[in-house]
Amino acid sequence: MQGLIKDLRRIVEPKRLLTELEDRMAYAYDGTFRTRVPDLVVRPVTTAEVSGVLRLANREGLPVVPRGGATSLSGGAVPLQGGIVLALTSMNRILSFNREDLLVMVEPGVVTAHLHRNVEGAGLFYPPDPQSLEASTLGGNIAENAGGPRGIKYGVTRDYILGLEVVLPDGEIIQVGGSTVKNVSGYDLTRLFTGSEGTLGVITRANLKLIPKPEARRRLLAVYDDLGAAGKTVTRIIDSGVIPSMLEIMDDTTIQVVESYGHFGLPVEAAAILILEVDGFAETVERQASIIADLCRSAGAIRLEVARNEKEGEDLLKARRAVSPAVLRIDPRKPTKISEDATVPRSKVPEMIVRLKEIARRHDVTMVVYGHAGDGFLHPNIITNQDDPEEMARAEAAIDEVFKLALELGGTLSGEHGIGYLKAPYLVNEFGPAGVKAMRAIKEALDPKGIMNPGKIFDQGIGKMRAPGRG
Amino acid sequence: MQGLIKDLRRIVEPKRLLTELEDRMAYAYDGTFRTRVPDLVVRPVTTAEVSGVLRLANREGLPVVPRGGATSLSGGAVPLQGGIVLALTSMNRILSFNREDLLVMVEPGVVTAHLHRNVEGAGLFYPPDPQSLEASTLGGNIAENAGGPRGIKYGVTRDYILGLEVVLPDGEIIQVGGSTVKNVSGYDLTRLFTGSEGTLGVITRANLKLIPKPEARRRLLAVYDDLGAAGKTVTRIIDSGVIPSMLEIMDDTTIQVVESYGHFGLPVEAAAILILEVDGFAETVERQASIIADLCRSAGAIRLEVARNEKEGEDLLKARRAVSPAVLRIDPRKPTKISEDATVPRSKVPEMIVRLKEIARRHDVTMVVYGHAGDGFLHPNIITNQDDPEEMARAEAAIDEVFKLALELGGTLSGEHGIGYLKAPYLVNEFGPAGVKAMRAIKEALDPKGIMNPGKIFDQGIGKMRAPGRG
Repeated sequence: MQGLIKDLRRIVEPKRLLTELEDRMAYAYDGTFRTRVPDLVVRPVTTAEVSGVLRLANREGLPVVPRGGATSLSGGAVPLQGGIVLALTSMNRILSFNREDLLVMVEPGVVTAHLHRNVEGAGLFYPPDPQSLEASTLGGNIAENAGGPRGIKYGVTRDYILGLEVVLPDGEIIQVGGSTVKNVSGYDLTRLFTGSEGTLGVITRANLKLIPKPEARRRLLAVYDDLGAAGKTVTRIIDSGVIPSMLEIMDDTTIQVVESYGHFGLPVEAAAILILEVDGFAETVERQASIIADLCRSAGAIRLEVARNEKEGEDLLKARRAVSPAVLRIDPRKPTKISEDATVPRSKVPEMIVRLKEIARRHDVTMVVYGHAGDGFLHPNIITNQDDPEEMARAEAAIDEVFKLALELGGTLSGEHGIGYLKAPYLVNEFGPAGVKAMRAIKEALDPKGIMNPGKIFDQGIGKMRAPGRG
Repeated sequence: MQGLIKDLRRIVEPKRLLTELEDRMAYAYDGTFRTRVPDLVVRPVTTAEVSGVLRLANREGLPVVPRGGATSLSGGAVPLQGGIVLALTSMNRILSFNREDLLVMVEPGVVTAHLHRNVEGAGLFYPPDPQSLEASTLGGNIAENAGGPRGIKYGVTRDYILGLEVVLPDGEIIQVGGSTVKNVSGYDLTRLFTGSEGTLGVITRANLKLIPKPEARRRLLAVYDDLGAAGKTVTRIIDSGVIPSMLEIMDDTTIQVVESYGHFGLPVEAAAILILEVDGFAETVERQASIIADLCRSAGAIRLEVARNEKEGEDLLKARRAVSPAVLRIDPRKPTKISEDATVPRSKVPEMIVRLKEIARRHDVTMVVYGHAGDGFLHPNIITNQDDPEEMARAEAAIDEVFKLALELGGTLSGEHGIGYLKAPYLVNEFGPAGVKAMRAIKEALDPKGIMNPGKIFDQGIGKMRAPGRG
């Protein structure tokens, strides 16, 4: 290790290499519950530094874990096997902004909301909006292929990445994709690295596509005393030709938790609410809002509110954004949140919610359900205590069933959060041994020594949640 | 070979195995100019048959070339090294249509226009629209990640593929992606196989995303006596917030050629024309069309026509669709069309056109330029004669410069057609040795014996256009 530290000092300035325990401890966690203190932390500022670090790590066979805002909900940034954490938050410049071509080139450490504010100031729009956007970085968003409420209309991070600069595990620097909206040159490595969870290389630069900012938007709240009616609304909207820019659902428990947390005026007696948004040209927005209001009512909404101005719209969004912090306050004895993102075909959302509630009841766990209903995307959150092994065992049994259910309904393990370590043991259930083998073959082709973010995506047989390394 | 034929007869019905030269000759070509008669042709009807054929071919180390409508313009379907052509046109069923979830599951041999008509009859929309859509198949579209005029608003084939069934070279059948619009489970193999040009496996099934069909559309024709003004219009439209569903450009030569071919009433004295389309809700279409008309005029259009009805709009599109056949009739002594698809950032379109014309002049070749200007996508077509080695040498020198120019302007070798054999020698110019090495590593990981479509994407040192095997 001392030799390695000496070599690293030749690559980065001393202050960018953290070796003291108290410094390294700050890099042991992410948005999940396992922690592990890395052996070293490097905070590079250039691609050449990243390349130098990877070259050394590869020589030594030492794990490297890229880290942005560390908001991952699947465990992407936890250095499960120690090694080097490569903290990319100092590479945080917006390198160029090409208004004519609607392109922006960024370093991986740019915080997502910072980019939003920058481009919106120029009348442009970078749609991907993970809930973590005030803390998460674009590098992390790309590595996890982050989504968000606007995905239903605007797609996810993947849809806005035209090109990447990537440092491969052996230190080679490659450019994939480019600067054009159409590009079919060679294999689509841009999209292979997008969502690869830091297991194939380190993203050091990204060329992002922007779009013009919609000139108007309108938000709506629809209240239901019946979950099925809310689900029916979702299907009818999708069928209507109107594509909302947001279509969020909250179940009864979520509504109560959020309301008691923030007093937003949500209807605590409701079985479910939908929060909707439409955007575009002013006159289109009016028409879309009116079509959607009619659809909500005819599908059985017992109350409908259309935000009359931007302030009222903002209040609705605040309630949605409060879900995550609110959920953590449900019960002081249950500080552990296991946030899943099982996703099903849209028409299966009502069935999924009903059966999630059954699962929670059967295993006696506290669960709230909310999510991007328009994408078939739900966040069943189990609220538990990681220090209570008996309750954690029940939580794990419930999660097992959640994944089984999602796949049974034709869905996927992960719609937004990625596989990380939390879902790695389940990957084979979705793709079968041959599918996982194909993915592993790609991993081994690009990272033959397996240094990049080990223990993520691919199960290393260390078990599920209760495995050692947690705590 | 006789042993192999015996083994293949155990896998497919006799009539689905073509061994006679006169039968095999029909599978020697695609939309490019090289040909090679395959040793065998198999026309499977099930995934299991495809799997059985690949297993055998892999055992024997025999090349396998998947083939759909054989309209490739980069050489995807030419069996350069002989072996087995796997003609997938008999796997042409639409397997399921899920209206609620806006999904359709197809076999690879379904002709693109057939799917269009099917889903549009139900009020839905599958946007990808390569010009070859009446002949090309979805399997081919996916393998090449086909685009089309509607790409500017609706994206390309890649954006509509939710999941694939793929047979790997060793015969293993895997499912990648799924049925949900959001999916970040494991590596994005769906998009890796999309655009992989048949070099990684055989697509036997695809799950496609549909969207609601726009209720109205309007087409416009803008005429320019100055190419720069047409280019300026493109940039201004992109900047305006209106995203047209089509933004096509034709240069003077293209206009003259198309008009003399079809008498569409195009302005033969013009320096360039733009053909535009907007779609969406009826009232939005009116507003968008009026914004675009104003932008065209203020950027210097000397004439502007707005199609008053669907018939007039259809006529405009017919002129655009006639480009390809028209170009082939320019000169009976020049029956060979080399159609490139170099793509640049949108703002570089005017410069690209001017410099393409210089290149054509300098090398004394006949070139027409048209394309999807809104995507920065141009089709410089060189019209030549493959049997005239001197002229082909000049064409090749010109093409060399076209690629160099596209990359110099920040563009890519291929926006729509793929690399195939035609552009394989240039791949390294775009991605460098390390980038190509990473792509090759993936190829070798999934196809260690190199049986899948050899000679495509990766240069095998057999030279550029004039290489043996042509004719």
